[in-house]
Amino acid sequence: MSTKRAFNFCAGPAALPTPVLEKAGLELADWHGKGLSIMEMSHRSADVVAVCDKAEQDLRDLMAIPDNYKVLFMQGGASSQFSMIPLNLMTGSGKADYIVTGQWSKKAWQEAKRYGNAVVAASTESNNFSSAPSQAELVLSPDADYVHYCPNETIGGVAFDYIPDTGDVPLVADFSSVLLAEPLDVSRFGMIYAGAQKNIGPAGLCVVIIREDLLGKAQACTPTMFDYKVCADNASMYNTPPTYSWYLAGLVFEWLKDLGGVDAIAEINHRKAKRLYDYIDNSGFYANPVAIANRSIMNVPFTLADSKLDKLFLQESEAAGLLNLAGHRSVGGMRASIYNAVPEEAVTALIDFMADFARRNG
Amino acid sequence: MSTKRAFNFCAGPAALPTPVLEKAGLELADWHGKGLSIMEMSHRSADVVAVCDKAEQDLRDLMAIPDNYKVLFMQGGASSQFSMIPLNLMTGSGKADYIVTGQWSKKAWQEAKRYGNAVVAASTESNNFSSAPSQAELVLSPDADYVHYCPNETIGGVAFDYIPDTGDVPLVADFSSVLLAEPLDVSRFGMIYAGAQKNIGPAGLCVVIIREDLLGKAQACTPTMFDYKVCADNASMYNTPPTYSWYLAGLVFEWLKDLGGVDAIAEINHRKAKRLYDYIDNSGFYANPVAIANRSIMNVPFTLADSKLDKLFLQESEAAGLLNLAGHRSVGGMRASIYNAVPEEAVTALIDFMADFARRNG
Repeated sequence: MSTKRAFNFCAGPAALPTPVLEKAGLELADWHGKGLSIMEMSHRSADVVAVCDKAEQDLRDLMAIPDNYKVLFMQGGASSQFSMIPLNLMTGSGKADYIVTGQWSKKAWQEAKRYGNAVVAASTESNNFSSAPSQAELVLSPDADYVHYCPNETIGGVAFDYIPDTGDVPLVADFSSVLLAEPLDVSRFGMIYAGAQKNIGPAGLCVVIIREDLLGKAQACTPTMFDYKVCADNASMYNTPPTYSWYLAGLVFEWLKDLGGVDAIAEINHRKAKRLYDYIDNSGFYANPVAIANRSIMNVPFTLADSKLDKLFLQESEAAGLLNLAGHRSVGGMRASIYNAVPEEAVTALIDFMADFARRNG
Repeated sequence: MSTKRAFNFCAGPAALPTPVLEKAGLELADWHGKGLSIMEMSHRSADVVAVCDKAEQDLRDLMAIPDNYKVLFMQGGASSQFSMIPLNLMTGSGKADYIVTGQWSKKAWQEAKRYGNAVVAASTESNNFSSAPSQAELVLSPDADYVHYCPNETIGGVAFDYIPDTGDVPLVADFSSVLLAEPLDVSRFGMIYAGAQKNIGPAGLCVVIIREDLLGKAQACTPTMFDYKVCADNASMYNTPPTYSWYLAGLVFEWLKDLGGVDAIAEINHRKAKRLYDYIDNSGFYANPVAIANRSIMNVPFTLADSKLDKLFLQESEAAGLLNLAGHRSVGGMRASIYNAVPEEAVTALIDFMADFARRNG
């Protein structure tokens, strides 16, 4: 294959593995010689059900998901989960704890307030979301229906270096930008969710992993399509699911399994991140504002010594085939997202470019 | 191109135009020489925004959508609309009229009852959903917030041969299986919606066309992602939309424009449907139960003289490259969905096969 492929550091929708895209391209109009595209087949057909079931099983294998958890393939992105979580789970005491470490966990909290007593258990907004709180800093309510947090904030590049201990209170986590990046003990969580468009597949799919005992408690006003139990009882096919995105997610899971699974990719991810942070810290030209213990291995924001050089940096990096390095529109600066599908060569090329740029402009 | 393509009569996800799939396949891993897939690009990027804007404009052109209507690209399928409609619109008198002519309009009504006073304005369930009520048979409430109906019921193959006159009450219509099949006076409607997986694109996208004065009235418990005003104010990008599905929809709209637009496809559609119904009616072997005036031009259910032959019919038709002719699991029999992307040759091949099968088994 001679597909031209640039190095893509987009925060999401993000890079997908080249072999996955090439395979999908080849079989797009004629899947497995059947004479039609997988996206033209009924979701009730044996072929599509097999593809979807295999994707779920591969994800279960990759993450070692215990049997008492349901895996749901939903729509509407993590933003829809911000409503679904309180609608489905804030139904005991009507109270939930939210740890706020960036724009996404703040949005989740704001939406939850509309449905009950959503309390901020800790916030790092005062330090401009440049760290995560320690376990000791969390003010948790023993009677909360759940505790919500975001282990990796995509915009700020802030990650937790531990899983919060919430005792018997279910822990709910937005893993959108870090699912499948490193091994995870799923049994520590009541629920895990992730929009697909970082480490899983195209936008429009959202994976939910939820402990069975949390199903069936939805508030009366919950839309049927937002009810986890309805989704679970119908194997994520209460209505027509986004079958093509589900199929692509399955190809990504296969690719990751072939690569050696989450342990193998975690080793690569940590190496990629370490090299980039080490370069930034030693450059004397670039800087990352996040507390060292809380640096994300997926999203690496950085600033230049002089922000007036930002525009030139973006122009030249794009010309060099290093795409989508602009920071989030709300914070500016640069950000390199180095998800599972971003190869190690991309980080090498980025560091080489950054060094050359610093030499010429420092 | 030598892609093998079968004739696909699936009710949804359904056939898409072969040229669209071939183009999408070729540029899947490298869109327009950019070195990345369109599904790997930020939804805020100039390229993706241009693709999305063009898709909207092409749809506006195809349907002659008046300027005082918003076009929204949402997720969750028509089933999510069943909740969104009452949540957003049943907020004046709290009452809405539902015309029930099949399983989908019945589902819409059942969901609406959860959010207010959803009244059945007419139902054809007593005749097993084999007709649509006349205008005179509709019992409409002058104070209803809206009237809902489904102009084309996919499962029963039942269509309205007129647009209900609801006076000043907004008319809301589920056009999932008939959007873009024939010309439509959008100004007669308060809102039109359609799941993509029939005439638009892959599953996971839902098009909503809504008159601007209906925005901004949502019930307090409406999830932010279910609020039409939020979606409209953010040009369908409040969160990451399903960009790849949106792009594919855009390719389908381009294909339809190139073909001559909705007038041109309507002529083909009517010819396809007439040929199939004429054959069925004259066959002495096959039958369609729907009142002649209410026969769908998109979904053609039919039964065999002896239902014991169903299995053989499905086996032999599949072997002949005529796929997905089984009726909906809830009704049995056969169903040929002949959407825009199903070519006239497919109908010819189907009729030839049906005639041969009848000859051998009649």
